[in-house]
Amino acid sequence: MNGQQKTVVVLGAGAMGSAFTTPLTRNGHRVRLWGTWLDDDLLAEIRAHRPHPRTGVVVDARVDLFPSARLAAALDGADLVVLAITSTGVADIYARAVRHCAPGVPVLIASKGFGRDTGGRVLLIPDLLDRVTPGRHPFVAIAGPCKANEVGEGRPSVAVFATPDVRLGRHCAHMFATDMYTVIVLADIAGVEIAAATKNAYAIVLGICDGLGTAGGQPWHNLKAALFSQAVAEMGVLAAAVGGRVDTVYGFPGVGDLEVTGLSGRNRALGERIGWGQPSTDAIAAMEGSGQTVEGPAAARLAWTLARNLEEQGHLSLARVPLLAGLIRMLDADVPPLPLLGHLLPSLAQADVLEIER
Amino acid sequence: MNGQQKTVVVLGAGAMGSAFTTPLTRNGHRVRLWGTWLDDDLLAEIRAHRPHPRTGVVVDARVDLFPSARLAAALDGADLVVLAITSTGVADIYARAVRHCAPGVPVLIASKGFGRDTGGRVLLIPDLLDRVTPGRHPFVAIAGPCKANEVGEGRPSVAVFATPDVRLGRHCAHMFATDMYTVIVLADIAGVEIAAATKNAYAIVLGICDGLGTAGGQPWHNLKAALFSQAVAEMGVLAAAVGGRVDTVYGFPGVGDLEVTGLSGRNRALGERIGWGQPSTDAIAAMEGSGQTVEGPAAARLAWTLARNLEEQGHLSLARVPLLAGLIRMLDADVPPLPLLGHLLPSLAQADVLEIER
Repeated sequence: MNGQQKTVVVLGAGAMGSAFTTPLTRNGHRVRLWGTWLDDDLLAEIRAHRPHPRTGVVVDARVDLFPSARLAAALDGADLVVLAITSTGVADIYARAVRHCAPGVPVLIASKGFGRDTGGRVLLIPDLLDRVTPGRHPFVAIAGPCKANEVGEGRPSVAVFATPDVRLGRHCAHMFATDMYTVIVLADIAGVEIAAATKNAYAIVLGICDGLGTAGGQPWHNLKAALFSQAVAEMGVLAAAVGGRVDTVYGFPGVGDLEVTGLSGRNRALGERIGWGQPSTDAIAAMEGSGQTVEGPAAARLAWTLARNLEEQGHLSLARVPLLAGLIRMLDADVPPLPLLGHLLPSLAQADVLEIER
Repeated sequence: MNGQQKTVVVLGAGAMGSAFTTPLTRNGHRVRLWGTWLDDDLLAEIRAHRPHPRTGVVVDARVDLFPSARLAAALDGADLVVLAITSTGVADIYARAVRHCAPGVPVLIASKGFGRDTGGRVLLIPDLLDRVTPGRHPFVAIAGPCKANEVGEGRPSVAVFATPDVRLGRHCAHMFATDMYTVIVLADIAGVEIAAATKNAYAIVLGICDGLGTAGGQPWHNLKAALFSQAVAEMGVLAAAVGGRVDTVYGFPGVGDLEVTGLSGRNRALGERIGWGQPSTDAIAAMEGSGQTVEGPAAARLAWTLARNLEEQGHLSLARVPLLAGLIRMLDADVPPLPLLGHLLPSLAQADVLEIER
């Protein structure tokens, strides 16, 4: 066991929420798992010691389970709260939950994506939550190249805990880290959030390249690798523009997380359909119709709105995020991917030469 | 056609040498392709307008072909020479070739890897060649995420031309670039060479993760993504230690090229065998036995020797390249991959926390 036994409350019983219980129980903490009103079926399976429907992992029997109505009880005496809620629901759940938490209790945010304030402005999730309770809770963003099922199974994984308070980050890391769950502590919460939020968007592009290969009978590896690299570069542009660090994006939260997101998952699968030649509106409809929520398109649109806001404020030039611009055209104007992506590459050469001469 | 018609001589009729003829002929240059004494069979196929045995691409009939005995004739009046020879043979071929070149003719180096000087010291290929003819020819290193067959087929690709003389780099880029072959010019030849030379070593690690997944019936994506990210970080450590730029590694020559090398190829295939559980000595022997030269193990050993030399000189700490160290143990001591790679991850957390506190 790592240090003192603590009471850790995980909000959200989906794939990632349930997965966190593996390292936490292994470290001897009292772990509570609360499910939203959408998680009742999941909790029933967990309670019956059957594999979690989304990860295939049986949750440790020592985890205390709380249905949605018992939020206050779940949070009673919490030393640490983990938010593992979809990005669209996280602000609402957080607002309900904090009423039951003592001020100062650290909140770990595994929810990834962007939010909007009441004025429609795009915000990073920690900034969105801080508007609910300004300064009341310190935040730690959890990111990194982690598929939930592998974390739940206790297979080797690296996660990143980001918080400006490095001492707090280390404390939380110590509570979670096992020999199979490595936690890297970084101070750059903005850079980590940008990478985590945009990776689902850029993973669509990687899927498109795979789909082009399937459709044509031959892989398009050079295109895919070039666009992977370009995606990382654009994440860096966005991170710097919101005050984050470019080198955060070059590490586990950016390069690593994009790699794992591009290996499988729904956003990659959506891209594959578009690469085959399916119009993107049909592809999105087909995935949603089979009950698969795909976060990438919304993430792409919010990232694009953020980028335009940042340009208006003089923090970046949209010319430095051409892949994001192209993705928006493929998603929202059904522009076919191959000519668009092929034409994008030559434009990069000009940008890079300018870069080195600055 | 891009600019004036020039005479470009490609030395080496293998996959990459033959592939370069596609953008060059498309741009209207006089292109000559010279084959080494090992390339006679390849030249025979090219001459008969049959697909190149290694790329499946039929070489443009306008390319003039030269067998090994006609090296002087091939180089007569050359405006530009491209070296597309294996790293073990490139110094020898270069020494023979330069006798027939006017001083100052630019030499583009597509050969990738490390060499050794007569004292056994590990050198980057441009430094190795410069010892043959100090200062006589300006060098441009060609790298980037390019599989030869896709370049040869004229499918969208990004290459990097690196030279401290950016004006020369742009001139060469202009000669090669087509709408399907984008050339990025970078000044950092050392960083590009480190990335290009070590990617084959680190691609073995990516293959090992794939092999572990095949053997166990489930993918090890978290491990693979974490090690991909770690590989990029170690390339950056090595690049900085030889005077290159870390951000070179984070772009097309590093992240992009590692991505494409990890998608397929012999080094990945070797790693896959090791991941399945085949002792690495047997895996290397099996690949060599089927006529597949695998460059990664030699690249890994030379990179490790270079790293140790650099540590002795005070330019890096070996603690910052633990994945390279682990790869050497897997290759040369048949240490099984899973415990080794699993144990490696927790060591990274400590390193990173130290990093951000510096």
